Amino acid sequence: MFFASDNTSGLPGPIMDALIRANDGFASGYGTDAYMDGLRTKIRRLFDAPEAEMMLVTTGTAANALALATLCPPWGAVYCHPLAHIEVDECGAPEFFTNGAKLVHVPGTDGKIDPDALDAQLAQSGRGVVHHVQPACLSLTNLTECGTRYSVAELTTLCTIAHRHGLPVHLDGARFANALAAEGCTPAEMSWRAGVDVLVLGGTKNGLMGVEAVVFFNPDRFWEAQLRRKRAGHLWSKHRYLSAQMLAWFEGGLWLELATQANAHAARLAEGLAGKLMFPRGGNMLFATLPRTTHDALQAQGAQYYLWPDHQQMNFADTVCMRLVTSWASSDAEIDSFLNIVTAKR
Amino acid sequence: MFFASDNTSGLPGPIMDALIRANDGFASGYGTDAYMDGLRTKIRRLFDAPEAEMMLVTTGTAANALALATLCPPWGAVYCHPLAHIEVDECGAPEFFTNGAKLVHVPGTDGKIDPDALDAQLAQSGRGVVHHVQPACLSLTNLTECGTRYSVAELTTLCTIAHRHGLPVHLDGARFANALAAEGCTPAEMSWRAGVDVLVLGGTKNGLMGVEAVVFFNPDRFWEAQLRRKRAGHLWSKHRYLSAQMLAWFEGGLWLELATQANAHAARLAEGLAGKLMFPRGGNMLFATLPRTTHDALQAQGAQYYLWPDHQQMNFADTVCMRLVTSWASSDAEIDSFLNIVTAKR
Amino acid sequence: MFFASDNTSGLPGPIMDALIRANDGFASGYGTDAYMDGLRTKIRRLFDAPEAEMMLVTTGTAANALALATLCPPWGAVYCHPLAHIEVDECGAPEFFTNGAKLVHVPGTDGKIDPDALDAQLAQSGRGVVHHVQPACLSLTNLTECGTRYSVAELTTLCTIAHRHGLPVHLDGARFANALAAEGCTPAEMSWRAGVDVLVLGGTKNGLMGVEAVVFFNPDRFWEAQLRRKRAGHLWSKHRYLSAQMLAWFEGGLWLELATQANAHAARLAEGLAGKLMFPRGGNMLFATLPRTTHDALQAQGAQYYLWPDHQQMNFADTVCMRLVTSWASSDAEIDSFLNIVTAKR
Amino acid sequence: MFFASDNTSGLPGPIMDALIRANDGFASGYGTDAYMDGLRTKIRRLFDAPEAEMMLVTTGTAANALALATLCPPWGAVYCHPLAHIEVDECGAPEFFTNGAKLVHVPGTDGKIDPDALDAQLAQSGRGVVHHVQPACLSLTNLTECGTRYSVAELTTLCTIAHRHGLPVHLDGARFANALAAEGCTPAEMSWRAGVDVLVLGGTKNGLMGVEAVVFFNPDRFWEAQLRRKRAGHLWSKHRYLSAQMLAWFEGGLWLELATQANAHAARLAEGLAGKLMFPRGGNMLFATLPRTTHDALQAQGAQYYLWPDHQQMNFADTVCMRLVTSWASSDAEIDSFLNIVTAKR
Repeated sequence: MFFASDNTSGLPGPIMDALIRANDGFASGYGTDAYMDGLRTKIRRLFDAPEAEMMLVTTGTAANALALATLCPPWGAVYCHPLAHIEVDECGAPEFFTNGAKLVHVPGTDGKIDPDALDAQLAQSGRGVVHHVQPACLSLTNLTECGTRYSVAELTTLCTIAHRHGLPVHLDGARFANALAAEGCTPAEMSWRAGVDVLVLGGTKNGLMGVEAVVFFNPDRFWEAQLRRKRAGHLWSKHRYLSAQMLAWFEGGLWLELATQANAHAARLAEGLAGKLMFPRGGNMLFATLPRTTHDALQAQGAQYYLWPDHQQMNFADTVCMRLVTSWASSDAEIDSFLNIVTAKR
Repeated sequence: MFFASDNTSGLPGPIMDALIRANDGFASGYGTDAYMDGLRTKIRRLFDAPEAEMMLVTTGTAANALALATLCPPWGAVYCHPLAHIEVDECGAPEFFTNGAKLVHVPGTDGKIDPDALDAQLAQSGRGVVHHVQPACLSLTNLTECGTRYSVAELTTLCTIAHRHGLPVHLDGARFANALAAEGCTPAEMSWRAGVDVLVLGGTKNGLMGVEAVVFFNPDRFWEAQLRRKRAGHLWSKHRYLSAQMLAWFEGGLWLELATQANAHAARLAEGLAGKLMFPRGGNMLFATLPRTTHDALQAQGAQYYLWPDHQQMNFADTVCMRLVTSWASSDAEIDSFLNIVTAKR
Repeated sequence: MFFASDNTSGLPGPIMDALIRANDGFASGYGTDAYMDGLRTKIRRLFDAPEAEMMLVTTGTAANALALATLCPPWGAVYCHPLAHIEVDECGAPEFFTNGAKLVHVPGTDGKIDPDALDAQLAQSGRGVVHHVQPACLSLTNLTECGTRYSVAELTTLCTIAHRHGLPVHLDGARFANALAAEGCTPAEMSWRAGVDVLVLGGTKNGLMGVEAVVFFNPDRFWEAQLRRKRAGHLWSKHRYLSAQMLAWFEGGLWLELATQANAHAARLAEGLAGKLMFPRGGNMLFATLPRTTHDALQAQGAQYYLWPDHQQMNFADTVCMRLVTSWASSDAEIDSFLNIVTAKR
Repeated sequence: MFFASDNTSGLPGPIMDALIRANDGFASGYGTDAYMDGLRTKIRRLFDAPEAEMMLVTTGTAANALALATLCPPWGAVYCHPLAHIEVDECGAPEFFTNGAKLVHVPGTDGKIDPDALDAQLAQSGRGVVHHVQPACLSLTNLTECGTRYSVAELTTLCTIAHRHGLPVHLDGARFANALAAEGCTPAEMSWRAGVDVLVLGGTKNGLMGVEAVVFFNPDRFWEAQLRRKRAGHLWSKHRYLSAQMLAWFEGGLWLELATQANAHAARLAEGLAGKLMFPRGGNMLFATLPRTTHDALQAQGAQYYLWPDHQQMNFADTVCMRLVTSWASSDAEIDSFLNIVTAKR
């Protein structure tokens, strides 16, 4: 019963096979490998974006922070949801990489930014007044940190507001594949066609070892981004191991297949937890409120998950809120075991 | 009718005289002047703090940011009110000087942090979890940005909570003299005895040209602070002009005399605006809600003040909120002129 | 016998008078004062640069660091002489303001960069290779830290090389007035006509209290520079006291008159130290090698100066090297006293 | 003929096997995996350092920059050789991670710091003078960037000088295994017993995919280091893939076996290039000066290597300097092919 995170699972067979194949012989380093050439072509085609540039890093925090640093100057403001990963879970990486930009909260239910709130805040942003940080970019997350999903229409609305105020848009797509599989749209529709300027396309939570692509639909600042990556120690010398993985991930639509599996596991879990979920399910992450006695029983059986909003914040009330994340490697068996315990304790 | 800020007024006679006297002959630079020796002794006596160290800079933003940088590491969180000057009006200086610390909002009415909210947030701060920024210090402001005043008891309560959670306390005292004059306590009572670790003692808004003392009641990190000051370009070579001013300011209690005058002017203004004030008056700054027609009449007569919360945010409603700040140089005449216009438009 | 620095002297009468006049009444803050309008017009005319923008700060370190930060990205290299003030005497301010740019040494005799060395280094700069910092700007100083002076021709040669390699040029003009007075050219000839893009025009070492103008001959990044200034705590609220001083300084050519006086004092001193100077005199700063016994005799009479290259580096050899700086406030009498001691000890 | 870098080779069989084994099932993330526990124990034993703490990152640049940031404040100076990787090849990563520390060059032949030069520079370091950056740490590299090797005695001499001046020591051990295998001493002798405070123990250039251990012999600042790692985006979620690799690398002394092979390949190459080497061979990296015609012939046959000091710096003289790096995966056959071409062109 491993529901702590989608990053606790291993690599699916085809990815490990790709690593083994890539290991053969010598390869030039730092992104000049042949796999990277193939990957670049693949991503441009998949996203219908022939001008796009991309680079690989190995963590989502690095990918987000590098993307933000190219969009936001040190005196800039990044508008984001108060629960955004960049705000809560990156130990200030965006502030470090941008040299001190400010993350400004825009509220909204279910982890999704409210368009009217965004518009109102940008209208009163202090732009042009030297005493205030200057609005610089909008950062969205899909799937959100609440496991919900922005529809293409919702993304478009938010991006349009941002663009109208002159702000480019960053999309934290740590679970982009899950969102895409659930939404059933094209990669372009969920990114640049909706108005996204820089996409973090996460592989790590969907079957890769530690591979995230930062995709710049407008390549103007790509050289700067590469310098920032190197300077942050995120340029891999044995780069082929990253590009080979991601190339195999796209092969035959494996990435969406894995995401679909993860989502289906979450759906099964959600069904069993009907009435106990805090947010509508968007993909492969759920938040359920359950009695403390159920929690105790689950713990006794070794179930793994985080309490929310913070694991530390041990809740001595009668109920607890659990974050439950499924992955491609989840099994019906463990889900059913979990649900059996929940049901038994009712 | 100059109510835009207490920094639009000039220097009182004794301060200008001190500058003229200090101008005579040669003096060694960078804080090694004799005035500085006298000032150090004076501040230690006034604050009953023989171990305290202090340094001078010329803006409140620099003073606050340097103080915070000695208290808060790059991965730290500064807890402050959402309306704090360090959050709103310094274009990210705290983030720049700390290399990217995060300012975390603690709510409270009338610009004052709510003790229960602070305690609750610190109890759930993420301390010890590597994914989150680590709680590092509490930043208070007295007078607050709403023109209200923390009592000594209120300060003590907040500092005690912070210390209990292991956090030192910074006090932005841009209007410390006004607060002190109004509260009628000793400098020690409003600073280290209440639990303040680093005080920014503002002179600029109370009659000096551009002089702020950063007072470290615990001198352990004073050498670091001096290096940070130099590195930020805030170490004056012709330092005597700063120290001579502030020394003269303390002479015969001038600083409190000036603050008392400013407060009295605000009291006169407040009396005339009874029923229209947004916050209880703490010293020399008021926020009044008045009809737009009154605003138009005041503008026509050349009255100067900012609209609040943001001058830009031009309010097309029937009422506007004005920020009105008095200084030692305000006059009964201009106050009465102002009030006459307000009364006439009623 | 005050030869420690040109910043140990006071303000000349007309500057103090300007401060007294400026003190009258209320003035709007943050650079919106009428004096600043006059100053801007004045500088544009003096430099024959109608498009130039400028801002004031109070220290040379701040002025240099802000200028460099607008010219050089975090991953950039600033090419400078190993003895440059920005490298040696600013405690890393350029690195702080640029967020970690690298200062790259270009050698040359007498404190002046060798053009061939610059050209060769720029030709092998690593531009376009992601592993290396990228060449970003050239920083010159006139007068140099050795008290020598670049001629207009020499400046032009260096700036031309920099521009050919795509680098803009910063000129640290802490002693620009002294250089200008000695060179006998126009302000434009020693700045933008020679190829300087951003000039730090120092007032502090030539009679002002703490006023430095950062002049952008290309105003494209001026808004960024203003945000950086605010964010660094260098935007003065009572700004009139800065602009009024500098406006008075230009009045009737006072700035060049003061610089000419300082240079003449240095010339008198140099004449008496013939044969003992380390570098050719460029303006108002000399370096003389004298017997230790002479040093002892001078110290006994209270003469003030720094040993070079570092005061700390107490030299127990038979000779010491003194840095001697004159100012507008130096007197023939003190110079002659100094020289008498030198002569007596021969 | 792959001599461009030791990072162009793949993973040896046992490492790939370890990855395959580690891939099985679920594992908790962020360094809490069982492999990491084993690795910690292993390193403590190998280094005879039961108190040491360590963390893993995936690039040498990150490892070095994180180590330096824990040793050196923003206003600090890192003393290093002018050819050090941290100075030349990391695009300013040390400056980024330290928030602007300065790298100060200490000269020495063959890429090794001269002890007398170090001692002299530290004696004149400007410590305690606020205008100058403050000496903060010494950074050494073994093998050096010239492919030479510090003996244990040489390391000890340098570390002793640094410690006498109060500076801790960082050792960039990107090729620590090669140095160790060649020197024939214990890991402790080449690190903490010689005086090293923080070691970067490189795995990437010696058979791992991208794994570097940062070993803190004094664990006082380890928590800070972990926060810095997270904040820099270098904390891997699927951490088991890093720790499992390095654990397998130590298994049965594989790491030294691989290094010994690489060194032996270099020895064979060196023998064939006798009289043409620029520096004494320390391990697996050589620099050879050869006729341009030989270079052309080698290129025609597809030999891969970098020209030095910079590949870009295309040398139109009659000779070129090649950097030649061997690895565990080099073969006698390719070495002999290379040497045959060299001999044929003589």
